Amino acid sequence: MTTDAASPPADLAVTLARDLIRCPSVTPRDDGALDVLEAALAPLGFTCHRLRFEQEGTAPVDNLYARLGTGGPNFCFAGHTDVVPPGELKGWSIDPFAGEIRNGRLYGRGAVDMKGAIACFVAATARHLAEKGRPGGSISLLITGDEEGVAINGTKKVLDWLKQRGERLDACVVGEPTNPGALGDMIKIGRRGSLTGYLTVFGAQGHTAYPHLADNPLPRLVRMLAAITETPMDEGTAHFQPSTLALTTIDVGNPANNVIPAAGRATFNIRFNDAHTPAGIESWLRRCFDAVGGAYELEIQCSGESFLTPPGPLTELVADAAEAVTGRRPEYSTTGGTSDARFIKDHCPVVEFGLVGQTMHKVDEHVAVEDLARLTDIYGRILNGVFDRLAG
Amino acid sequence: MTTDAASPPADLAVTLARDLIRCPSVTPRDDGALDVLEAALAPLGFTCHRLRFEQEGTAPVDNLYARLGTGGPNFCFAGHTDVVPPGELKGWSIDPFAGEIRNGRLYGRGAVDMKGAIACFVAATARHLAEKGRPGGSISLLITGDEEGVAINGTKKVLDWLKQRGERLDACVVGEPTNPGALGDMIKIGRRGSLTGYLTVFGAQGHTAYPHLADNPLPRLVRMLAAITETPMDEGTAHFQPSTLALTTIDVGNPANNVIPAAGRATFNIRFNDAHTPAGIESWLRRCFDAVGGAYELEIQCSGESFLTPPGPLTELVADAAEAVTGRRPEYSTTGGTSDARFIKDHCPVVEFGLVGQTMHKVDEHVAVEDLARLTDIYGRILNGVFDRLAG
Repeated sequence: MTTDAASPPADLAVTLARDLIRCPSVTPRDDGALDVLEAALAPLGFTCHRLRFEQEGTAPVDNLYARLGTGGPNFCFAGHTDVVPPGELKGWSIDPFAGEIRNGRLYGRGAVDMKGAIACFVAATARHLAEKGRPGGSISLLITGDEEGVAINGTKKVLDWLKQRGERLDACVVGEPTNPGALGDMIKIGRRGSLTGYLTVFGAQGHTAYPHLADNPLPRLVRMLAAITETPMDEGTAHFQPSTLALTTIDVGNPANNVIPAAGRATFNIRFNDAHTPAGIESWLRRCFDAVGGAYELEIQCSGESFLTPPGPLTELVADAAEAVTGRRPEYSTTGGTSDARFIKDHCPVVEFGLVGQTMHKVDEHVAVEDLARLTDIYGRILNGVFDRLAG
Repeated sequence: MTTDAASPPADLAVTLARDLIRCPSVTPRDDGALDVLEAALAPLGFTCHRLRFEQEGTAPVDNLYARLGTGGPNFCFAGHTDVVPPGELKGWSIDPFAGEIRNGRLYGRGAVDMKGAIACFVAATARHLAEKGRPGGSISLLITGDEEGVAINGTKKVLDWLKQRGERLDACVVGEPTNPGALGDMIKIGRRGSLTGYLTVFGAQGHTAYPHLADNPLPRLVRMLAAITETPMDEGTAHFQPSTLALTTIDVGNPANNVIPAAGRATFNIRFNDAHTPAGIESWLRRCFDAVGGAYELEIQCSGESFLTPPGPLTELVADAAEAVTGRRPEYSTTGGTSDARFIKDHCPVVEFGLVGQTMHKVDEHVAVEDLARLTDIYGRILNGVFDRLAG
């Protein structure tokens, strides 16, 4: 492996990605990442709003909303500058925050998830403005520092802030690394929702030799958990895989094998498609548990509803752009975990398209410099078409 | 409440019970209890063997085997001088190791479980020898200091020692507090067995968003536990209540609600009657678990098989003696937890009869002085009849 340090990248996407990587913005820290971004956007004419949100019990988070133009439609690129921790530094063959290029690859935490994609969009915008002038609408960036963390003081609150200002988004592309193997593989047009249930079943403690004097909650807990896991929640829908329910833990913590415990607890995580709502799932769970009977408590935490942007003008615009650059027609997919698109979907049509995710969250995260150039081209084609094709 | 200190008890059962209580022999400590007992038995002509057993990982335990006579039949009284801890001393209205008498009650840890009963048997033997002379067989006492504890270095090892010496027991009464409400209520003619199962179910860890890439062991664990708890093990037998299975704990310990765990563990305790053997129960469990499938480990620990001394000469001897003194015909019962009778049953017919258990293991444990006198009478009547009625 050789270092290309002698030939610094001339391309804006590469230099900006490198500068962003050099800010060790491990969630929820910013460490100058938004300053780097603002310094690139302001000269292009963007009005930049730095939005710092905090809430009791969470770390304060810096966010950036930057808009070029005031008219509609307002096309938004959404992303995050925070990154997951590098983990064991010994596992890295290169400093995760040096932003070094070796053998045509830019290495570093955030290279694909997703500082690289942000840099590509800024570069595409700069070229678009240079070549086409002011767009027939607005271009905006919604960049948070709280996507990899608890996601409380990030995109959700920026969207609330926009709504309060009466500022709307008309279409959005999120720059998450959606391509499993190669650029052009996959556009995410939706995501399953995620909901966690905390079930506690109550009984009365006693001695195992005298079970009639006790009320063992565990057979009921077991039957409740059997009831919710014995049949699939659905068979999948037009654009979604089947919903899944995963029991993640069961805990009683009773060290005495001659004692019947007073309570048992279980946690399960449901990834649900567009056949379900959180309220509908909770009703189903309670019907299952009530059928078993006895005293129980169920707490539901929904960290994101499912969303779907059905195939249409926005998905086709992105797919056409990707195909034109890569020669591959991306698959429309709704697989995988959650992203901030779960918040944006309440405001406007949203799809996700970015770099190749293979090394995300892993050691030696990296992006091919060629992919930065190609994603810049794809984003540029989206900008070229978005104001015509999404108008009205 | 007044202290009767001015009128010390003249009766041997009371003084001996008091002296035993004054040894704070919280299991597995002896603290002089066996010395007190030996000092009472040796003058009566008993040959006393002090047997100290130990095993790696357990505390050494002192035991006493005392025998009067060398011929058969050998009638044995079995018991224990160790006691459970007093617990919160604040809860006691009297020093648990002072052996004080108040309002006709002897207070102290072990008063009914079972220093009092040992004292009664020694007093009954002393009177029997004084009145009838040497018996037509042998009288023995098997007293352990390891009944309330792990029961590894106690009765079981004394019985092994006896077997190695070629010394047999022909009938045995265990002095456990068998009477729920009043002296004469109940003789235990058997006990259920106790078996604990430790089940571990294995799978493969993964992310809840990608359950197809993982193998969640918890739905299998839940189905296995549902299978073994959904139907009663039996409907009871001639002398036994139905067997019971109590889930005592389920533990996974997975703190992450987006992670599918690699394994889950459960423990259950089975109290089984004479319809079952430990081997039969293990086969049934494995059939249930194999029907669910997947990788699992099952560890079985049997702390005692069930035993039954069917109604016959020994049970009638004890019942007749109790009825003659109390005017009540005791019920034959097989209820409750385990006792050292589970070991003795492999050597000779064994029944259990002692004091009233109401205050056992509780604060202010106490025995009515009158009950000590009456139990001495009952044990005396047993000694009067045992060599005639159990001969041959």
